[in-house]
Amino acid sequence: MSVVAPRGFRAAGIAAGLKVSGKPDLALVVNDGPEQTAAAVFTRNKVKAAPVLWSQQVLTTGTLRAVVLNSGGANACTGPEGFQTAHATAEKAAEVLGVGAIDVAICSTGLIGAQLPRDVLLAGVEKAAASLDASPESGLAAATAIMTTDTVAKQAVAVREGWSVGGITKGAGMIAPSMATMLSVLTTDAAVSAETLDSALRAAVRVSFDRLDVDGSMSTNDTVIAMASGASGAAPSVAELTVAFTEVAKSLAAQMQADAEGVTKRATIRVTGAASEDDAVTVARTVARDSLVKTALFGSDPNWGRIAAAAGYAEAELDPDSLDITINGVLLCRGGVAAGDRSLADLSGEDVLVEVALGIGGGEAEILTTDLSHAYVEENSAYSS
Amino acid sequence: MSVVAPRGFRAAGIAAGLKVSGKPDLALVVNDGPEQTAAAVFTRNKVKAAPVLWSQQVLTTGTLRAVVLNSGGANACTGPEGFQTAHATAEKAAEVLGVGAIDVAICSTGLIGAQLPRDVLLAGVEKAAASLDASPESGLAAATAIMTTDTVAKQAVAVREGWSVGGITKGAGMIAPSMATMLSVLTTDAAVSAETLDSALRAAVRVSFDRLDVDGSMSTNDTVIAMASGASGAAPSVAELTVAFTEVAKSLAAQMQADAEGVTKRATIRVTGAASEDDAVTVARTVARDSLVKTALFGSDPNWGRIAAAAGYAEAELDPDSLDITINGVLLCRGGVAAGDRSLADLSGEDVLVEVALGIGGGEAEILTTDLSHAYVEENSAYSS
Repeated sequence: MSVVAPRGFRAAGIAAGLKVSGKPDLALVVNDGPEQTAAAVFTRNKVKAAPVLWSQQVLTTGTLRAVVLNSGGANACTGPEGFQTAHATAEKAAEVLGVGAIDVAICSTGLIGAQLPRDVLLAGVEKAAASLDASPESGLAAATAIMTTDTVAKQAVAVREGWSVGGITKGAGMIAPSMATMLSVLTTDAAVSAETLDSALRAAVRVSFDRLDVDGSMSTNDTVIAMASGASGAAPSVAELTVAFTEVAKSLAAQMQADAEGVTKRATIRVTGAASEDDAVTVARTVARDSLVKTALFGSDPNWGRIAAAAGYAEAELDPDSLDITINGVLLCRGGVAAGDRSLADLSGEDVLVEVALGIGGGEAEILTTDLSHAYVEENSAYSS
Repeated sequence: MSVVAPRGFRAAGIAAGLKVSGKPDLALVVNDGPEQTAAAVFTRNKVKAAPVLWSQQVLTTGTLRAVVLNSGGANACTGPEGFQTAHATAEKAAEVLGVGAIDVAICSTGLIGAQLPRDVLLAGVEKAAASLDASPESGLAAATAIMTTDTVAKQAVAVREGWSVGGITKGAGMIAPSMATMLSVLTTDAAVSAETLDSALRAAVRVSFDRLDVDGSMSTNDTVIAMASGASGAAPSVAELTVAFTEVAKSLAAQMQADAEGVTKRATIRVTGAASEDDAVTVARTVARDSLVKTALFGSDPNWGRIAAAAGYAEAELDPDSLDITINGVLLCRGGVAAGDRSLADLSGEDVLVEVALGIGGGEAEILTTDLSHAYVEENSAYSS
């Protein structure tokens, strides 16, 4: 299902031969309309991959017929030759679909700094186009073809009366999924304007993908693309569309957290009582990024002092005398001082809830994160992964 | 030698019984004058340990007779009781030295959130005072007593004509030594004003301790204290004193890098061609902190794409088309594109030099860092270390 759950979409996922392993590595998602409304959010990294540079141009029109996504190579730091490869890929997809290259976005993920084999890629686009359909299997095949170190394909659907939203994603970095490249395609058969689609997408991303650890650390390739076919005839409000997009994006973000590289703990850092929502996000992110907090999580150690120290160096308003820290429901620090026996907090399970109450205002936010484990070091120290 | 190399100083390091292991855990450094000029740099963490709060008050006078330093407990997040412990420690030292409590600074390091056993601490101060002397062994004993996960005592001396600077430090965190608490005492027998001492100390810290990975991530206890006895009668200029302090502080920072938790690689991130020195520091820090870069270092992988991605999300001016990356002398990326065979860069040794040339302006800076290894995860996931 996923991206083909909404009416008007077809998808495919095939093995083009970009991955040495021979596993699926090329996906195609096509919007058959009647409308081809589109919006996207791209990495803010100043070093942008060729497919990002290409797709940013394409998306200025607010319309899109298709997205080609490949794993097995990021096509980043590849210069003019890399850009020509992205362009040629769009031309090839446009040719087989009978549209213009300006209607085709490109997303890539994999090693930075290597050219993609253009012939292999273009042959793969033809092969994918030949297997396009709207069956549930095609959505799964597309989700599977964009996996890198992901261990499971990630899909989600939100069904509304008469219309729906579907989505696929990949991304398995731990510290910041975006760094390991996060690619996502969201589809809907709602009939909405490009402005409504853009607004709903940005609002959804802000509280889902952007709350999975850190958005300050972005890869060269991160891309989230939304396409609306209008095939349902339903015209939800921007609020209704935002809620549905958020539901799908939050599900996909949680799936990425659960499948993060080397994860043994899934942690939610919930900050309340901040001076503002921004402050709450800043404190939660700082705690979530702190390597000493992450290794303590791996060790099932309720070391709240490290959490207090991380909160203290976050660039946000904080009063050390009104700082409360609760781990898995056990209050360990009240007013900045130890509040009982830390061994009462049981971190032996896979899920950990860290609550940091600042006691200043009404701002609150949650960041999803993971621990820092041996498996993370192992996976990321492998040669040029 | 170290802190007792300059004339006018005595030191001691003893086992007070704060550490369960029975290892040395309390140091005392005394300035016998004739002058008692002092300056200090403290953590910018908003959650400050009790000894920091105490010492900040003491240092407002610009004079200091002695510093008591203990490992085995940070006395942070300990509320009024913890502050009273710091105060009582200063009172005890003042009593046995025949000075005022306002002349005694306190530094602590260890677990956050636990009260220090006050009686044990005060008895330790008496014991340390009884063994104070100016022998080379006493400097080593003081350096040894402040070790936590450090594996070697860290000392340095800079000798000038007629005067000298000495120093000791501890700190063994990898991501940011400051997070694992960095304590340092620098001494000199130069005759200088408090303003000169403060200026030289801040200038030295800025290019040494602050360039060892990250200063944005600070512990609750980080403290660097400088004391001048005037015993040499020599009156170096602020520039001369800055150079000598910088020499000692850079040596101590390099020793901390070499002894960082779980380190298998010592990496220098050198950024040149930045729009400003601040931009160079920002880019170098961002690369140094990036977990994907750090794990690649551990894996001896010349994965320059991760370095390019980290540079690209640093909050600094950057032109992806003028980005050069060189690892251990081998140019791997020129103008943002692969520049040859990455396997030519040999990272099998313990020292790695990463050069990032931005091609924009004349700003440059170096940050010292380390890899992210299994040993780091092991050491920091141990229960409440």
